[in-house]
Amino acid sequence: MSEPVSGAAREAADWWATGIVRMAPGVVELRGIPVQELIGSVDFVSMIWLMVRGELPEARRASLLEAALVASVDHGPQAPSIAIARMTATCGVGLNNAMASGVNALGDSHGGAGQQCVEALTDIVALEDDGTDLAAAAERVAGRYRYVPGFGHRFHPVDPRRDPLLALVDRAVAEGVVAGRHLRAARALETFLNGAKAKPVPMNIDGATAVIYAELGFAPALARGLFVLSRSVGILAHAWEETTAGKRNKGPVPRSILPTYREDTAAR
Amino acid sequence: MSEPVSGAAREAADWWATGIVRMAPGVVELRGIPVQELIGSVDFVSMIWLMVRGELPEARRASLLEAALVASVDHGPQAPSIAIARMTATCGVGLNNAMASGVNALGDSHGGAGQQCVEALTDIVALEDDGTDLAAAAERVAGRYRYVPGFGHRFHPVDPRRDPLLALVDRAVAEGVVAGRHLRAARALETFLNGAKAKPVPMNIDGATAVIYAELGFAPALARGLFVLSRSVGILAHAWEETTAGKRNKGPVPRSILPTYREDTAAR
Amino acid sequence: MSEPVSGAAREAADWWATGIVRMAPGVVELRGIPVQELIGSVDFVSMIWLMVRGELPEARRASLLEAALVASVDHGPQAPSIAIARMTATCGVGLNNAMASGVNALGDSHGGAGQQCVEALTDIVALEDDGTDLAAAAERVAGRYRYVPGFGHRFHPVDPRRDPLLALVDRAVAEGVVAGRHLRAARALETFLNGAKAKPVPMNIDGATAVIYAELGFAPALARGLFVLSRSVGILAHAWEETTAGKRNKGPVPRSILPTYREDTAAR
Amino acid sequence: MSEPVSGAAREAADWWATGIVRMAPGVVELRGIPVQELIGSVDFVSMIWLMVRGELPEARRASLLEAALVASVDHGPQAPSIAIARMTATCGVGLNNAMASGVNALGDSHGGAGQQCVEALTDIVALEDDGTDLAAAAERVAGRYRYVPGFGHRFHPVDPRRDPLLALVDRAVAEGVVAGRHLRAARALETFLNGAKAKPVPMNIDGATAVIYAELGFAPALARGLFVLSRSVGILAHAWEETTAGKRNKGPVPRSILPTYREDTAAR
Repeated sequence: MSEPVSGAAREAADWWATGIVRMAPGVVELRGIPVQELIGSVDFVSMIWLMVRGELPEARRASLLEAALVASVDHGPQAPSIAIARMTATCGVGLNNAMASGVNALGDSHGGAGQQCVEALTDIVALEDDGTDLAAAAERVAGRYRYVPGFGHRFHPVDPRRDPLLALVDRAVAEGVVAGRHLRAARALETFLNGAKAKPVPMNIDGATAVIYAELGFAPALARGLFVLSRSVGILAHAWEETTAGKRNKGPVPRSILPTYREDTAAR
Repeated sequence: MSEPVSGAAREAADWWATGIVRMAPGVVELRGIPVQELIGSVDFVSMIWLMVRGELPEARRASLLEAALVASVDHGPQAPSIAIARMTATCGVGLNNAMASGVNALGDSHGGAGQQCVEALTDIVALEDDGTDLAAAAERVAGRYRYVPGFGHRFHPVDPRRDPLLALVDRAVAEGVVAGRHLRAARALETFLNGAKAKPVPMNIDGATAVIYAELGFAPALARGLFVLSRSVGILAHAWEETTAGKRNKGPVPRSILPTYREDTAAR
Repeated sequence: MSEPVSGAAREAADWWATGIVRMAPGVVELRGIPVQELIGSVDFVSMIWLMVRGELPEARRASLLEAALVASVDHGPQAPSIAIARMTATCGVGLNNAMASGVNALGDSHGGAGQQCVEALTDIVALEDDGTDLAAAAERVAGRYRYVPGFGHRFHPVDPRRDPLLALVDRAVAEGVVAGRHLRAARALETFLNGAKAKPVPMNIDGATAVIYAELGFAPALARGLFVLSRSVGILAHAWEETTAGKRNKGPVPRSILPTYREDTAAR
Repeated sequence: MSEPVSGAAREAADWWATGIVRMAPGVVELRGIPVQELIGSVDFVSMIWLMVRGELPEARRASLLEAALVASVDHGPQAPSIAIARMTATCGVGLNNAMASGVNALGDSHGGAGQQCVEALTDIVALEDDGTDLAAAAERVAGRYRYVPGFGHRFHPVDPRRDPLLALVDRAVAEGVVAGRHLRAARALETFLNGAKAKPVPMNIDGATAVIYAELGFAPALARGLFVLSRSVGILAHAWEETTAGKRNKGPVPRSILPTYREDTAAR
């Protein structure tokens, strides 16, 4: 690393080149900042921002991100990711393996709604930029989905995490911390959905956090990445609780309720 | 690859050197055999043996391995690995991701009993080689465990897979295909356990397949590896059945039986 | 399971009902067949078929599947899945965890070409059924892709696994084992691509195995599932070879070729 | 959930009972606190503490944990977990799947040193409690290991993260925030190792964070769990950087340095 290498060796080194970290004996620089300057000075959420975005955030912007991360940590063992982590933790593997299997389940249907909602909000803002009226833009984007990502909930009539998150965004808009266009786009979607559907379809946690991620300028795919960081906290807590309970090879239901065989299940 | 490289490039190439496969443009050799000579000539089980062991097996030895692989494919959705794969399959990820999470749960308690049993059988044979009487060797090795791996079952009074597997090993011993020492060791364990415990502790699927893997000379850790190949078949079948059922974000129990909160659960 | 349960308990049991396996104390039935009738009687490939499809295959059809499974086991540590499994095996986790991480990488770009090719072949056959000429159908379907899945190779001028696989399908068509329509569709695609591109774009392993899976009537998604079963063999062999080599925390390149830091890498 | 259920249904609900979260329509309580009281009020690190430990931490204790989490986020793509996440990200899977495979590699050798070091420090403190002299206790515990976990580094002569972390612990001890006994144990280990070995074996990042986790009263296994939360940040940053680079199926070395075949590799 200190002396120049050439040809194939250079190619191999370039293959793994990165803008995130610089390593040398005695040196760890993260996004250009020596790690020793970060330890004790920078909070964890700003560190997440630095690593993912390449620069440290303004404090009030970091606070918005923090609220989104706090809000999403857990939604109970009914969520597949949590149940999976708990079951894996009983199978004689490391805590990291149990967490990995939980994270692996945060796919398009389970951890992807935030990402899809950021995309929807971004599209509404882009339509507005092209001269479309906000309500019309919301309607047009909503029309693409059977279920608009970030809205409605199978369990909560009103998601208790929605209002406190939106209140924080409202304040951030009032203080000029964020522009508020994605928040307005989300509210326009909500208004449209409430008018179009038989019963209200309020914004849920994925919608409210998507507003924050979008207002803060995160790429849509990062909405999923940030959700993974947040939900990993719940996954760890549950995997650890299960570990301390001491069960072995925990199945999905007690043995007294064994699964039944279904004669009529066809497959090909 | 064709012309010699030197220094760091050579080091990088050596870093990934392998005795399993040789690649060149137009060439794939597996364990020294051109792949085109294997396709259509070699059965899948012999291919597994070749890849893992480095040589093709004698046909009757391959048949024993085949029986073990067939016997272990599935034991129902009560097994965490199967339930996990099914749940993951409903979360909007690829079929390979669902299979990976299932395989990831085949840890020490779920997929490791075969490996531990091969170790126990190997130790008994080694004690015999050192002059210990077989029954005494079995008792001494059994004494190391609270539950001897490969024996007893939480669900089956007698595991229906035990007898057909052992009958095949008996025949293989009679025909001189395998030596039979690990089979005798396993039976000595079973005899000891049946005498020592209040109710019989018959050999289970992990014990019976461990006998086969040990007789065929597989290293203990490969007992787990081979079990993974076998159970992956069940994992695929279940993940696919769940996929075709079309559920989204399947939790461990129906929503009508939501988990209850337990006030008294302590953690630290 | 033996006595009827009602209400919520029934619902919980139904939640995990399956057509694949029936369990009772002393009983394991796979697709309706007691496991003891399968052990020693059915080969592993037919067992895969039974589990995934629900019925045992005709022997010559099973042989075709077997050839596809044999052909795909390994393509060297340059493939991410293999390198990942080897690296994970050095990190102090179980062999099953190393295999899981390898399988987890068999995504749309790495393990998905077979699935996509089955879809393309199925579409060509469907167009033919609607009266489109075969060559025109191939051209139309090819037009959807920048790179047609299952054709061309970054490394092999001609994939050495192509010809032996296609020869087996040709024979199966001649013997009436399969209909041959997907084989013809694949050849029509190849003919079109060879005419349309500056250099030949021959069918590769994904294309040749897709022909087999499609001829045998597997759903497209199962092409990926079956590939996972096959490549898991190579993943196991490599993870095990790496394990026996005894390295700890193996990085992607030797420490002498440490990755370099790239100043100009931007991210957001 | 609202009305009492009995028998099997109750058993199924109990199966998934948890002390971490309470869910009801419109209600999410985390460790007994309504989620809406946490959003905007509690920082992310305190949230981690609450979820894992069951209570909110005192602010200066949370700061110590925060420093440990900040310090461990990344150590470059030479680390298997990072390289694996980057490679997986090029294979056509979700960002969560790439992160999962990285986390899955944080096993005993890669992510387990902190856990092992917490155990060693705890044992030294226990020996002291039993009347053993600190230096003798350190020597006795060190004697159990070939390489004492948390000490020495293959790359850094002095780990740049050590001093700033220990300085924070020193201050916390001076202020009575933590007791300092595990810090003293770690320094006694370091002193012993520096005397016993030909060259200094200074505490590394795993040792310094283990001191923090132990001083704060986390169970040893949680040292790994917390490390996973921290390193997941680096894993996300790298997986995302790789995603934006647009490579497909990235192998461990460039194709110009293809792995070489080694004739002499034996396996069994």
